[in-house]
Amino acid sequence: MPYFDAASAAPLHPVAREALLASLDEGWADPVRLYREGRRARMLLDAAREAAAEAVGCRPDELVFTPSGTQAVHSGMSGALAARRRVGRGLVHSAVEHSAVLHAAEVHTAAGGTVTQVGVDRTGRVAAGEFAAALRADTALACLQSANHEVGTEQPVEEVAAHCQEAGVPLLVDAAQSLAWGPVPGAWSLLTASAHKWGGPPGVGLLAVRKGTRFAPQGPADERESGRAPGFGNLPGIVAAAAALRALRAEAAGGADEAARLRELVGRIRTRVPELVGEVEVVGDPVRRLPHLVTFSCLYVDGEVLLQELDRAGFSVSSGSSCTSSTLTPSHVLRAMGVLSEGNVRVSLPYGTDEADVERFLQVLPGVVRSVREQLGVPVEKPEKPAAAGEETGLVVDALGRRCPIPVIELAKVIGRVPVGGTVTVLSDDEAARQDIPAWCAMREQEYVGEQDAERGAAYVVRRRV
Amino acid sequence: MPYFDAASAAPLHPVAREALLASLDEGWADPVRLYREGRRARMLLDAAREAAAEAVGCRPDELVFTPSGTQAVHSGMSGALAARRRVGRGLVHSAVEHSAVLHAAEVHTAAGGTVTQVGVDRTGRVAAGEFAAALRADTALACLQSANHEVGTEQPVEEVAAHCQEAGVPLLVDAAQSLAWGPVPGAWSLLTASAHKWGGPPGVGLLAVRKGTRFAPQGPADERESGRAPGFGNLPGIVAAAAALRALRAEAAGGADEAARLRELVGRIRTRVPELVGEVEVVGDPVRRLPHLVTFSCLYVDGEVLLQELDRAGFSVSSGSSCTSSTLTPSHVLRAMGVLSEGNVRVSLPYGTDEADVERFLQVLPGVVRSVREQLGVPVEKPEKPAAAGEETGLVVDALGRRCPIPVIELAKVIGRVPVGGTVTVLSDDEAARQDIPAWCAMREQEYVGEQDAERGAAYVVRRRV
Repeated sequence: MPYFDAASAAPLHPVAREALLASLDEGWADPVRLYREGRRARMLLDAAREAAAEAVGCRPDELVFTPSGTQAVHSGMSGALAARRRVGRGLVHSAVEHSAVLHAAEVHTAAGGTVTQVGVDRTGRVAAGEFAAALRADTALACLQSANHEVGTEQPVEEVAAHCQEAGVPLLVDAAQSLAWGPVPGAWSLLTASAHKWGGPPGVGLLAVRKGTRFAPQGPADERESGRAPGFGNLPGIVAAAAALRALRAEAAGGADEAARLRELVGRIRTRVPELVGEVEVVGDPVRRLPHLVTFSCLYVDGEVLLQELDRAGFSVSSGSSCTSSTLTPSHVLRAMGVLSEGNVRVSLPYGTDEADVERFLQVLPGVVRSVREQLGVPVEKPEKPAAAGEETGLVVDALGRRCPIPVIELAKVIGRVPVGGTVTVLSDDEAARQDIPAWCAMREQEYVGEQDAERGAAYVVRRRV
Repeated sequence: MPYFDAASAAPLHPVAREALLASLDEGWADPVRLYREGRRARMLLDAAREAAAEAVGCRPDELVFTPSGTQAVHSGMSGALAARRRVGRGLVHSAVEHSAVLHAAEVHTAAGGTVTQVGVDRTGRVAAGEFAAALRADTALACLQSANHEVGTEQPVEEVAAHCQEAGVPLLVDAAQSLAWGPVPGAWSLLTASAHKWGGPPGVGLLAVRKGTRFAPQGPADERESGRAPGFGNLPGIVAAAAALRALRAEAAGGADEAARLRELVGRIRTRVPELVGEVEVVGDPVRRLPHLVTFSCLYVDGEVLLQELDRAGFSVSSGSSCTSSTLTPSHVLRAMGVLSEGNVRVSLPYGTDEADVERFLQVLPGVVRSVREQLGVPVEKPEKPAAAGEETGLVVDALGRRCPIPVIELAKVIGRVPVGGTVTVLSDDEAARQDIPAWCAMREQEYVGEQDAERGAAYVVRRRV
């Protein structure tokens, strides 16, 4: 059964499994103790730290293990911000960071700090110059992911790191999605990652703080992991995580170019899904991207139903559609990119994905999308009744109380009833409409006029162009 | 090779190992995802939560899993303190809590809160009435361990919980050392524990917050574990931890009274070590204690050397002596109890400890202690030169720059030179002397007069009584 959600969690690498088993026997004791079981645990911990540091490209004493990538981000940000409090309280990050960064930024704001978000283009990429321009004299910390977790777009980390260095601002790189594929280049100051994204077990993250970076750990003191990760460490998990990372690097060095193989498979999905399905927007940078991840959105499709149908067909994928989130808002990444969020599917291929599974996905997907669209009564391609001269030039569609993708479907149904130059106004209180109506206009080459206040929700005005 | 440091970390219970292996295959995916791997992970997580809640004696929705017992304490304390900030900023805890509580208390103090420590008697036990008297109108939270991690003494948790309930103050119970042996009785509000103390893997703690307890999680928001433990959970570890706890309870219910068996073995150590070794103080409550843990201190012994020699003889134990701590201060628990800290040994028997190993320990220990004492030139029992009338009645011993146990050894060497009623003044800059000189006096029935300021360190005055 093909599992295509490696960006959430990857199955355990076989080497990690072996290392975990071995360290359950050898690595359960407290590595700070001086007796033989403690010394053995200490040796395992030291070896794991060296392996991880080598894969990250830092010194072993610059790297600590945390209980998760999220906690690495939280600790890294709070420690760096606190250490530079006298410099200022400014925090700069891209608009498409992982929620771990956004949540830590909220805490910073609540404590009186200021946050500057740097926007992205339609591919989800920040412009290095724009990022540099956001750095100010009072900027204490900048955060930029190495690659986006939802759309796979790589960020210009090396260039941004150079700008940060010049400005004297430490840069924290969230490398959760990319570390499996190689170290992050450039003069970053802090780096975080999460083992269960690279085939390690859950329960292990890492935080690297390069020498010379001011750092003041926050929260209660603890002597373990240089005071940067409180509590008794998950040593068997750490050993397994380091073993998996070392194995990935060794396989790559040995000529097994899994990244290139997955890149080609993802390329097929990028090319063929629009051809096979129709009314699809493939998002993210087509070239500067993670090898294993692709996201596309299908017009007139309910994301949650699509995921359920794909699951029934045997495919496990993820989505950034509003209907798949607990808050009923679309993914902040897709919103920042200004792209369609409805019918959104993220495919992220685990290491070793079978090519035949990808082909089968491409066979199954069109039928699944068609059936979901049929259930929703999606309009036919051509307007049923071409608008004649003299017909009403303004139409109002009431989609209040109806959720994504219904407002867009209702718009598409009636656009043909107004003449070219006429407008359709969609009343909607669905958060996704704010994003998806403009995105639909861009895809269909209609003009998005704008949003107006309404008694309930908002009124979205569209002018027919074609 | 007998490992006698279960209070630091217990080897994995065989049931935990099996459960861990199974959940590596079944429980690696994200339990919030809706596809089959996610649903499977969710079922495992739900089952683990139910099992742990049953063992704790709370509802499943009152319990979350954290990455460690330490993080459970930190989160539990900060969440409870923040939720009752309007009531006041007072925190009450015993003087012998785990460092996780003390460190969280330091953060609370640094943020403007007040902390009241409740002292303990010579067995390490708080008096429930004294604890109750420390509760004030502005007390936001009280913390009391179920049993002490260094000396095994059980605290009157049920009684203290009743006092807290009456005062309307939530009580957080750190049950790290006792949960293996049974649920904590009484009307506590929050409870924390650590899986690797009960035979679960490292990387798992738990925090129970009973309904009706005000709680406001601190730090960055996160939707997992009711917002009380950020980051992707360590599901295989959680499943294994819950399985181990369930197995312990099932074994106890099935009549296998491991607690009684270990209690008897510990009883042997308590009785026979003073007989076999001499000049030993066994500390902690002899009856109201954990079944598996005993601590004793050997006069005129360097704790670090003792641990090394025991390790060489094949026994892994722990110590609260100053020379075994990174700060060169004795354990705060022994200090609060006012007992000897030098030559301190904590024996904590893991589940299933072989009786023969305990017997062998009792055979080996006397010779090991003797050889350590010989290396240090310990004074013979009787004063070499009985003091005669007219001899000088005051003597000063300069032990500056010399570490535990030397100042006490030097004192013992010269006490016979002064007449009964005369004094010996020990100059020492070793932190352990402040604790061990009075403790020595109590053991030897000499009078501890007090401490005086000195140019370097302090001057400890002892009056000869016998």
